Amino acid sequence: MQQRSEETRSKIMDAAVRRFAVSGFDGASVDDICTEAGVSKGAFYHHFPSKQSIFLALMQGWLGLIDVGLGAVHKDTVPETFIEMTNLLPQVFAAAEDRLPMFLEFWLQASRDKTVWKAIIAPYRHFTESFTKLIADGIAEGSLKPVDSQVAGQTIVSLAVGLVLQGVLDPHGANWEKTARESMGILMNGLEKNKGDQ
Amino acid sequence: MQQRSEETRSKIMDAAVRRFAVSGFDGASVDDICTEAGVSKGAFYHHFPSKQSIFLALMQGWLGLIDVGLGAVHKDTVPETFIEMTNLLPQVFAAAEDRLPMFLEFWLQASRDKTVWKAIIAPYRHFTESFTKLIADGIAEGSLKPVDSQVAGQTIVSLAVGLVLQGVLDPHGANWEKTARESMGILMNGLEKNKGDQ
Repeated sequence: MQQRSEETRSKIMDAAVRRFAVSGFDGASVDDICTEAGVSKGAFYHHFPSKQSIFLALMQGWLGLIDVGLGAVHKDTVPETFIEMTNLLPQVFAAAEDRLPMFLEFWLQASRDKTVWKAIIAPYRHFTESFTKLIADGIAEGSLKPVDSQVAGQTIVSLAVGLVLQGVLDPHGANWEKTARESMGILMNGLEKNKGDQ
Repeated sequence: MQQRSEETRSKIMDAAVRRFAVSGFDGASVDDICTEAGVSKGAFYHHFPSKQSIFLALMQGWLGLIDVGLGAVHKDTVPETFIEMTNLLPQVFAAAEDRLPMFLEFWLQASRDKTVWKAIIAPYRHFTESFTKLIADGIAEGSLKPVDSQVAGQTIVSLAVGLVLQGVLDPHGANWEKTARESMGILMNGLEKNKGDQ
């Protein structure tokens, strides 16, 4: 019974991704999502109190996957860890491609609605804190220069946000995976100790 | 007569910024904008063939201002020029704050509509090309390492896009002007020749 409930929940979420992608958040109704998923409205509301809540669940699920992926990366030094993390980017780009219109609408709502805003800002701040901690670890282990670790953490998040946004909006404007990897390399050159001329 | 026409045009554009900020692109009608501006619908359509065209004009006007500002920055070396450019950021943040919801809707439409997409991608590619050229100049003058200038140009645009987006969505999450200046400093450390330990 538990398993069937989980299946229904994920069927609804998959259907919501498809409907939001085609019609946008405002354009896709709960009815549309139920029809696409082949479930009743009762089943929908059993799992999600509102259309906004499924939107938030999708967002958090996606950011959670990135978080788990990043957390699993461990290399000998902090600079190597950051470079290794860029290997996750193909998956991030692929996931963002389908969902970008939805996330743009989410950001749009965040700029107007305090509840959505809180839901979107928390994971961003969490990413910034994780990267800040990693930079601080690098300074402590002696691999990174004694920079302001918070600024460096924010720099990495900003670069990642900008790369994903550009990569999805302008997929043929560059080889974004290569650009992302080399961008991180330039940043690490600026942060690493004992890095002189090349 | 010419002057009065210019005044009407800019009155309509100011009114559109206010209406889009309050109601969003879809929510603000041409009627709303005309009422806010105190002009007739005839006057509106004399200046703008559609609501989308005024949206594009606002976008291009804003990006044009940034472009003029960046183009006016000239320092002795390329790294100094990039650092000096970050002094323009307070204006960019201030202008983006009012307009972010509008731009998010613009990006959203760009992800669905080829005409809007072309209008938004052209200036981004132009910024990337300008920065790429400046990096190439820095390599030629010997102040920057012989990096892939296009990757470095894309890195700078990505960082800027990410900083503006985060700065506007989470204004109290950081001192974004300071973060932007220091981020550029880290990036320049990674790019500059003759930069060893600090």
